[in-house]
Amino acid sequence: MNDLLFPTVGIAGIGLIGGSLAKDLRTFGLAGRILGWNRTEAHAARAVELGLVDETVPTLDALVATSDLLVLAMPVDILAQRLPTILDAMRPGQVVIDVGSTKRALAEAVAGHPNRARYVACHPMAGTERSGPDAAIDNLFRNRFTLIIDPERSDPEALARVRTLWERVGAVLAEMSAAEHDRTAALLSHMPHVLAYALARTIKEAERNQALNARFAGGGLASMTRIAHSPISMWQPIFRQNKAPLLEAIDAFADHLAAFRAAIVADDAEALANLMR
Amino acid sequence: MNDLLFPTVGIAGIGLIGGSLAKDLRTFGLAGRILGWNRTEAHAARAVELGLVDETVPTLDALVATSDLLVLAMPVDILAQRLPTILDAMRPGQVVIDVGSTKRALAEAVAGHPNRARYVACHPMAGTERSGPDAAIDNLFRNRFTLIIDPERSDPEALARVRTLWERVGAVLAEMSAAEHDRTAALLSHMPHVLAYALARTIKEAERNQALNARFAGGGLASMTRIAHSPISMWQPIFRQNKAPLLEAIDAFADHLAAFRAAIVADDAEALANLMR
Repeated sequence: MNDLLFPTVGIAGIGLIGGSLAKDLRTFGLAGRILGWNRTEAHAARAVELGLVDETVPTLDALVATSDLLVLAMPVDILAQRLPTILDAMRPGQVVIDVGSTKRALAEAVAGHPNRARYVACHPMAGTERSGPDAAIDNLFRNRFTLIIDPERSDPEALARVRTLWERVGAVLAEMSAAEHDRTAALLSHMPHVLAYALARTIKEAERNQALNARFAGGGLASMTRIAHSPISMWQPIFRQNKAPLLEAIDAFADHLAAFRAAIVADDAEALANLMR
Repeated sequence: MNDLLFPTVGIAGIGLIGGSLAKDLRTFGLAGRILGWNRTEAHAARAVELGLVDETVPTLDALVATSDLLVLAMPVDILAQRLPTILDAMRPGQVVIDVGSTKRALAEAVAGHPNRARYVACHPMAGTERSGPDAAIDNLFRNRFTLIIDPERSDPEALARVRTLWERVGAVLAEMSAAEHDRTAALLSHMPHVLAYALARTIKEAERNQALNARFAGGGLASMTRIAHSPISMWQPIFRQNKAPLLEAIDAFADHLAAFRAAIVADDAEALANLMR
């Protein structure tokens, strides 16, 4: 089998994930030509400047029409809107993947679509708090899990090629259902992001009200609030689409926080130590 | 003025903070001889092996008797117990500092002590989640704040020498009262540690109950739970000693988390975006 998995790859959304995947596709010789499209035109131009893509196309439709593999790296609300019409336009042999952080809403949006099997739902569990084409880095996916969702709903040959692509960029693969994915992502990623945003806001408000000087903070706070720098346009739709699992994860955390609070109120050394173990 | 600020420095507790300070004292030529004492004898032996201290002494009393500067880098519950009797034994010219994370309990423990002025309360806002002598690193304090607490209660000459020491190891100094310190530390450090412990526990429990596979986690969760690896023996007494400011900080955070929860329940995109800004 030739290393060139896909003659032409089209990347819709050339930011942290899309741009990093473009870099790896080139490094590992997995694509012949890499085309890009980005809603923000300045980002598209920058992606060409950085050499992430060979050229850009003016519309998402143009990208769909010309790509053997289409990579959708866009906010999940836009994904859910666009994926059905993208599937409408798919020709035999074309494959589309997404790299979104929620999957049930997408699964429902395309359930029963005649071209459903051309779509392979993916979630690389990798990222940083940075965004845009300048955030793209080499080897972002290496030794990190990429989750393949509802693999039985994809065409076996399309699935095999997508699996090979992720393996070639160093990802470790795992498969699960959309429901299991969304519960997993809520606990491991979405709820921790809510905590980071809420913590950052707590500190900001304390700074305003009590003349707290947050410059005194050590590395712990920076570590806890790093992901609160993630872009709102990406995360607000994730929180909305994953509502029920996210609320469940927040409530589970709140229960544990309440247990800590109770142990502190009771000055119960043993209970505290147990909670910290 | 000679670079040798203190002919003999005694370090009680040769872990991350005590050991890192020992390294810097030597690097910057600030001490003639560095003695160490550690409750855990294996750590004392390891500190000599690593060259952090020149030699160890068998008891804290022996360290107090021989040190021009005594550095107390011990859990805050032990500090509050021992500081008064350490001050009892102080001779003129000797100076004692602590590097503990809470200050009101200590301030109260030594208020009115005839040797109070020999003591300079310090809190370097630096650290990692690691502990023990092997965690000691160079330049831990460089470009990080060290807070000097209630400086007006210390002897001016002792205070000046301690300030010089921190400046020589690269720290940026700020002064505040014990009450302001404890509120600041609760918000910037203690409450975030509680969140990290509670989050780590939430994930562990979900793993147990729902067969969640936490190996799928990306960098965000690791960043949020890093400080939950901090030692219990150090943090449990901090949480207990800083009870009121810590509860206030936890409640402030819980209010912000509740606001997020409400915006998610209401599916209110604008409220969510505002909370994330």
